Amino acid sequence: MRPLFHPALKDIKPEAILYALSDPERVAIFVKLAGANSGGTCSALADLGDRVIPKSSLSNHFKVLRESGLVLSERQGVEMRNQTRCTELDERFPGLIKAILTAYGQLPGQPKTD
Amino acid sequence: MRPLFHPALKDIKPEAILYALSDPERVAIFVKLAGANSGGTCSALADLGDRVIPKSSLSNHFKVLRESGLVLSERQGVEMRNQTRCTELDERFPGLIKAILTAYGQLPGQPKTD
Repeated sequence: MRPLFHPALKDIKPEAILYALSDPERVAIFVKLAGANSGGTCSALADLGDRVIPKSSLSNHFKVLRESGLVLSERQGVEMRNQTRCTELDERFPGLIKAILTAYGQLPGQPKTD
Repeated sequence: MRPLFHPALKDIKPEAILYALSDPERVAIFVKLAGANSGGTCSALADLGDRVIPKSSLSNHFKVLRESGLVLSERQGVEMRNQTRCTELDERFPGLIKAILTAYGQLPGQPKTD
């Protein structure tokens, strides 16, 4: 099985973070993951409340999130466990993720703006 | 001549801002424009110091910047004057542009990180 690629913290690029979060579906996945207590599995994340994301799109969204440095994925048997790299990212790019999620009205605990 | 499209402040979407600024060349143009005293013309912005952007790419970059809501363009004779919409944008998405430019190490007055 092909190993999963995760960039080292120092190699994470702002352009990759911005591109990954320029898709509202990926933002919704990322926010749901950030709010999950334990690592979210792909299947648990397919249902985003107001819409269901097909498995193939979901898998691609996770690849973009992972390879940009936003998410850490780990295979566990047939499942994939995912968690955000928020703490690390905030060291490298202070305030960036928070400002982006605020712009989307998606900061945990904040009412959605539109 | 076709009128230039600029979204109203309330219609500016975070995904469009993020997409526009997920390209380091567009970020460089935007930063140079933000630092210019008067509106920058396209031709004055083609030379970004370490690289020269072909006119056709530059024109497309400006279209993306304008239609995402980052830049205001105005035709003046044969030239186009451009300015950033930073003040307005900061009302709508507080801290977003600053956090993005900081991540790129491109905040005016800040040394470039890489």
